[in-house]
Amino acid sequence: MPTPLTVHLSGEIHTDWRERIMTGAADLGLELRFSAPVSDHQASDDCGTTLLGPEAEPFWRDAKGAGLNAIRSRIALAEADVVVVRFGDRYKQWNAAFEAGWAAALGKPLIVLHDSELTHALKEVDAAALAVASTPEQVLGILRYVQRGELPPPTSSQD
Amino acid sequence: MPTPLTVHLSGEIHTDWRERIMTGAADLGLELRFSAPVSDHQASDDCGTTLLGPEAEPFWRDAKGAGLNAIRSRIALAEADVVVVRFGDRYKQWNAAFEAGWAAALGKPLIVLHDSELTHALKEVDAAALAVASTPEQVLGILRYVQRGELPPPTSSQD
Amino acid sequence: MPTPLTVHLSGEIHTDWRERIMTGAADLGLELRFSAPVSDHQASDDCGTTLLGPEAEPFWRDAKGAGLNAIRSRIALAEADVVVVRFGDRYKQWNAAFEAGWAAALGKPLIVLHDSELTHALKEVDAAALAVASTPEQVLGILRYVQRGELPPPTSSQD
Amino acid sequence: MPTPLTVHLSGEIHTDWRERIMTGAADLGLELRFSAPVSDHQASDDCGTTLLGPEAEPFWRDAKGAGLNAIRSRIALAEADVVVVRFGDRYKQWNAAFEAGWAAALGKPLIVLHDSELTHALKEVDAAALAVASTPEQVLGILRYVQRGELPPPTSSQD
Amino acid sequence: MPTPLTVHLSGEIHTDWRERIMTGAADLGLELRFSAPVSDHQASDDCGTTLLGPEAEPFWRDAKGAGLNAIRSRIALAEADVVVVRFGDRYKQWNAAFEAGWAAALGKPLIVLHDSELTHALKEVDAAALAVASTPEQVLGILRYVQRGELPPPTSSQD
Amino acid sequence: MPTPLTVHLSGEIHTDWRERIMTGAADLGLELRFSAPVSDHQASDDCGTTLLGPEAEPFWRDAKGAGLNAIRSRIALAEADVVVVRFGDRYKQWNAAFEAGWAAALGKPLIVLHDSELTHALKEVDAAALAVASTPEQVLGILRYVQRGELPPPTSSQD
Amino acid sequence: MPTPLTVHLSGEIHTDWRERIMTGAADLGLELRFSAPVSDHQASDDCGTTLLGPEAEPFWRDAKGAGLNAIRSRIALAEADVVVVRFGDRYKQWNAAFEAGWAAALGKPLIVLHDSELTHALKEVDAAALAVASTPEQVLGILRYVQRGELPPPTSSQD
Amino acid sequence: MPTPLTVHLSGEIHTDWRERIMTGAADLGLELRFSAPVSDHQASDDCGTTLLGPEAEPFWRDAKGAGLNAIRSRIALAEADVVVVRFGDRYKQWNAAFEAGWAAALGKPLIVLHDSELTHALKEVDAAALAVASTPEQVLGILRYVQRGELPPPTSSQD
Repeated sequence: MPTPLTVHLSGEIHTDWRERIMTGAADLGLELRFSAPVSDHQASDDCGTTLLGPEAEPFWRDAKGAGLNAIRSRIALAEADVVVVRFGDRYKQWNAAFEAGWAAALGKPLIVLHDSELTHALKEVDAAALAVASTPEQVLGILRYVQRGELPPPTSSQD
Repeated sequence: MPTPLTVHLSGEIHTDWRERIMTGAADLGLELRFSAPVSDHQASDDCGTTLLGPEAEPFWRDAKGAGLNAIRSRIALAEADVVVVRFGDRYKQWNAAFEAGWAAALGKPLIVLHDSELTHALKEVDAAALAVASTPEQVLGILRYVQRGELPPPTSSQD
Repeated sequence: MPTPLTVHLSGEIHTDWRERIMTGAADLGLELRFSAPVSDHQASDDCGTTLLGPEAEPFWRDAKGAGLNAIRSRIALAEADVVVVRFGDRYKQWNAAFEAGWAAALGKPLIVLHDSELTHALKEVDAAALAVASTPEQVLGILRYVQRGELPPPTSSQD
Repeated sequence: MPTPLTVHLSGEIHTDWRERIMTGAADLGLELRFSAPVSDHQASDDCGTTLLGPEAEPFWRDAKGAGLNAIRSRIALAEADVVVVRFGDRYKQWNAAFEAGWAAALGKPLIVLHDSELTHALKEVDAAALAVASTPEQVLGILRYVQRGELPPPTSSQD
Repeated sequence: MPTPLTVHLSGEIHTDWRERIMTGAADLGLELRFSAPVSDHQASDDCGTTLLGPEAEPFWRDAKGAGLNAIRSRIALAEADVVVVRFGDRYKQWNAAFEAGWAAALGKPLIVLHDSELTHALKEVDAAALAVASTPEQVLGILRYVQRGELPPPTSSQD
Repeated sequence: MPTPLTVHLSGEIHTDWRERIMTGAADLGLELRFSAPVSDHQASDDCGTTLLGPEAEPFWRDAKGAGLNAIRSRIALAEADVVVVRFGDRYKQWNAAFEAGWAAALGKPLIVLHDSELTHALKEVDAAALAVASTPEQVLGILRYVQRGELPPPTSSQD
Repeated sequence: MPTPLTVHLSGEIHTDWRERIMTGAADLGLELRFSAPVSDHQASDDCGTTLLGPEAEPFWRDAKGAGLNAIRSRIALAEADVVVVRFGDRYKQWNAAFEAGWAAALGKPLIVLHDSELTHALKEVDAAALAVASTPEQVLGILRYVQRGELPPPTSSQD
Repeated sequence: MPTPLTVHLSGEIHTDWRERIMTGAADLGLELRFSAPVSDHQASDDCGTTLLGPEAEPFWRDAKGAGLNAIRSRIALAEADVVVVRFGDRYKQWNAAFEAGWAAALGKPLIVLHDSELTHALKEVDAAALAVASTPEQVLGILRYVQRGELPPPTSSQD
C-alpha cells in the first residue's frame, strides 16, 4: 500500500466535513495526504478574473475561473489513490458529480458521502462507488480500515 | 471521419430536445447514429427491481436500477465519437454531470446544452466542453459542421 | 449504441444457460453477437497437446491448452461491449473469476450470473458487477433493456 | 529497478505463507514493501456493516463489505510492481482468481503460488503467470532473484 | 490491414495538396478514406459565432470557433490509421504542429509534408515522424506502398 | 468474436509459411483477414529511397526505408486480433523480435513460430507467447480452434 | 496534491520568462519542481552532431539533434503535473505547438502564455488550454493558486 | 525532470558497456538510477530450474527461466524514464530486440547502441529510437545532455 495514502476530498465546500476527516485522521495517526478544491467560495469564483483580467460577460468570467480550478482538480484526481465526493443539501453541485464521473472513468476507488435524502437523486453516482457513507466519521472509518485493516470496537453508534 | 458519426445524447429526459436533433439530422440527411439513456422515467427507475427482483430498501432498489442503466450508458460512452450532455431546469441531474465527467476523462469531444441561467452552476462542466449550446438547433448545426463543414446561410436567427 | 451489441458469455460450460440466452435473444429479435469459450470440455482440455504435440508432464499439458484457450478468451474480452460471467455449482471455476477480473480491469460492464447459495463466496466478484442475476432469463431481460429500453409487461413471474 | 520493490500478496488468508515470505525477506535484507488483503477473516466479512450500518439481506451485507475490501485491493494492485496470488485448499477463493485476472489485465508481472494438486483447476490462471511456485520459499527466492540477481547456493533442497 | 485505410490530412488549407493525394489515390484504385479540417478558411474562422452567437471580444470569438474545429479534428485523429501533416509557407500553422504532437502522443504513424526550406524549423516535428515528404506525390507513393507493398517503376523523377 | 478475425503474420519473408497458412485457411473456410510486412525483400529495402529520394549514407538509406515499413507494421499491429511471429534460420530477424515485443506490450495474443533449434535463443520471446508452434499447419490449427472451437480428427500426424 | 508540483516550462527560449517564474516561485516559497528544454540555442542545435558525429546533410544534422532534445522533452512531459507553453514573437516555434499537442493528448493540464497579438494564430492551441496567460507573473499567480488556493490582494494591476 | 533519472540498460551482457556508462556517470556526478538484466549468463539460464525445480524438456527449462527474467525486465521497463538497448556481435540477441519493441510500444524514449556493421540488420529497431549510438561514451554524453543540458567541450574525438 502506498504510504502515505493520497485522498482527494471533492465536492461540497460549505460544511466542516473535510476538517472532521482530517482531524480524525491526525488523531488516529493515519498516514494520509489530502487534496481538496479551494474551499473559499469567493476565491474560487473570482480566481479567473483576478489572475487573468476582467471579463464583461458572466459566461467567460466563469469560464476563466473554472479553468483554473480544473488545473487543481485534475492534478489531484490524477494523483489520488482514493477519491471521496461529498454532496450537501445546497447548490446544484454539478462539479462534484462531474469529478465523480472523472474519477470513476479513471478507475479510481470512489467513496460517496451524502445524506440519505439524496439517495434517489444520486443513484447513478452511488452505483459507481465502492462505498456510500452518510457521515464524515464513516469515511474516516473506511480510510482507517483501508490503511490498517482495523475496525472500531463493537460499540453501538457507528451507523 | 467515421461515417456514420456516433453521437451520445446524455442527460435530461423530460423535454423533446433529442427528437429535435434527430429529426433535424434526418431532414438534413446527416449520417449520424444516436444513443441515449432510457427516456421512460418510470422504466428507468423500475428496471432493477422489475428485472432482478424487489428490494425492501429504497437504497438498494435504486442501486439495482442504476446498475442496469449504467450498463447502457457505459457502452454508449465508450462507443461515442462525440457526447452531448443536456441540463434542464428540473431535478438534480447529477447523472448528467457524472456522464459529462466520464466522457471528458475518456477524452471524448463534449458538447454541453443548457439555458444561460445555468451558466454559473455549470461552469466546471462547461470548462471541459468544446462547445456550449443553448438550443438543440445549435447542437444540430454543430453536428452538421463537424460532419460536412457546412454553415447555415447568413440569416439572422441562429443565436 | 453499437448494433449488434457484442456479448461475451464467460464461465460455466456444463449447463444450457448460454443456449437459453441465445435462443431467447433470437426469439425477441435482439441484435446481439455472442462469444463464448469452447464448451466441449474434452476439446478444451486437449487442445494444446492435440494441436502442438504431447507433453509428459500434466502441468505443461495444461499450460499448452490454457494458452490456446486464452487466445480465444482475450480476443473475446477485448471485443465485448458487455461481459456475462456464469458460476455454476460444480468445479472450482477459477477461470470464470479470472475472466471477471480481467473484464473489470478493462472497464467492461460486467453481469454476474449465479445461484443465491454462492453469494457469500462470490461477494468480491459481485461487487465489481453492474448486475447480479440468478437466471439466464434475467440476463436476457437485461440485454433487452440495454438494447431497447424495454421492460417485460407487468406480469407476475419475472420479479 | 524501483527500490523498494512493491509486492502485493493476494489470495489465501488462512495459512502463514505471507509471514514466511516477509520474514524471509527481512532475514535476507531484501528491500521489499508488501501489501495484502485484511487477513482477519471476521473483520473482512464484517467491515461493511460495522462501518456503514447493518443490512437485513445477506447479499447487501456482503456487497457493503466487498466494496470496502475492493478499495484496499485496487489501490494495492495499482501500486504493485509484482503481484503474488496464493491459492490454498479451502474455500472457493474466487476473489484470488479475480485479483489475478485484474493484475494480468493491467500487465502486472504475476506469480501464482499453489500446491500441485490444484494445477489442472488453475491452468488458465497459471497460463497468465510469469512464474508458478509451490512454496513460499520459492516465491522468496524469486523476489531475491528479481531484486538482486542472486541464486541460492547449489544445494539440493530448493525444489 | 484495415481496408479501407483511414488517413487524416491535417494542416495547410491553402493549396491543392489534398486534392492531388485524393485524386491520385482514386486513379490508382487505392482503398483510402480521408478526413481533413474544414478547408474554407472563412467558415473555419466564423463557425463559432455563426453557430453559437456573436462575441464582442476577438479572443472568445476565436475560442468558440476553435472549439468547434477541435471536435472535428479530435474525432479524425482518434479514428485515423495514419496522419499526414502538411506545412506550407504562409501563416504560423501552429494548429498543424499541435495536431502533429497530438497524433504522435497517441502513437499514430505520422507523415510530415513540407518543402526543404522548412527543415530546420520543423526538426522536432520531423523527428517524431516515420516519413518526411516534400511533395503530395511522395505521400501518395507512401500510401500505395503501405496498402499494397507496391513501388513505382524505376524511372528517374520521384525525388 | 470478431468475424473476420484479423491476423498479423509478422517476421520471416523468405519461405512460404504465410501462403501455407492463408491457403489452408481458405480451404477450411475460416473467416480470417491477414496482414503482413512487404515480403519483396528488395522493395522492402529500397522503398525509402525510391519514394523519398536517394541517400549517400547507408544509415539514412536504411532509416528512410525502415520508417516506411514501420507505418505499415504499426497499423497492422494496432488492428490485429492476434499476432503470429515467425523466426527462420537466416538473417538476424531483429525486426521480428521487435514486433513481438511491441505486440506483447500492447497485450495482443501472440503466437510464435520457429523450429526447435531456436528454442534457447528465443526463450524470452516464447515466454511472452500464448502458443509456440513449429509448423505453419500448427498455426492454422490454432486459428481454426480459436475461431470455431474445432480440433482435427484424432489422427497421428499433427505433431 | 503532489508536493512539490512538477511544472514543465516548454517553448520560447529567448526571453527571461522562465527565470521570472522560477524566481517568483522561490520568493513566494512555492514548492515547485521545474523542467525545461535546453535553452542554449546553439547547444540545442548542435547536440546531435556534437555527441553522435557530424552529418553532411542539414536534414540529418537536424534529425540527430531533434532526437536528443526529444528524449529530454518526452521525459519532462511524461512527468509533469502541469505544462506551460510559451510562444514568443520570433521564430516559427512549431516545437512549442507540437509539445502543447502532445501534452493535451496525454491529458496534462495546459497553460499557454503569449501576447494578445498572437491570439488568432494560436486559437486552436488556446482552445485546448485550461488557462491562457499574457505575462509570466500571471502564470506564477496561477501556480500559487493551484498549490495554495491563494489569490493576490485586491490591488489593481494583475491584468 | 525526474531526479534521479531512471535508465534501463537492456541487451548484451558480455562486454563492459554498462560499467563504462555507470562509472562515467558517477565520475560526472550525474544523478542516474540504473536497472539491467541479470548479467551472469549462467544464472540467467539456470534461474528457473534452480528456483522452481528441474525440467526434463529443454523447452520448459528455458520457459521457466525466461519467465523469471521477464519479471525483472518488465518491472524495469515500466519504471524506466529512458531505455538503452545494446546489440553486440555475438548471439542472436532476440531478447534485446524484444525489449526494444516493448519499450517503444510503451512510448519510452529509446537509445540503441551498436556498431555500424549492424546498421542494416537493426534498421527497424533504429527507426524507433530517438538516438543511435556506437559507443557507451556517446550514451553517457546523451544522458549528461538530457539531465543537464551540457555538451562536452569542442574537442575532436567524440565521434
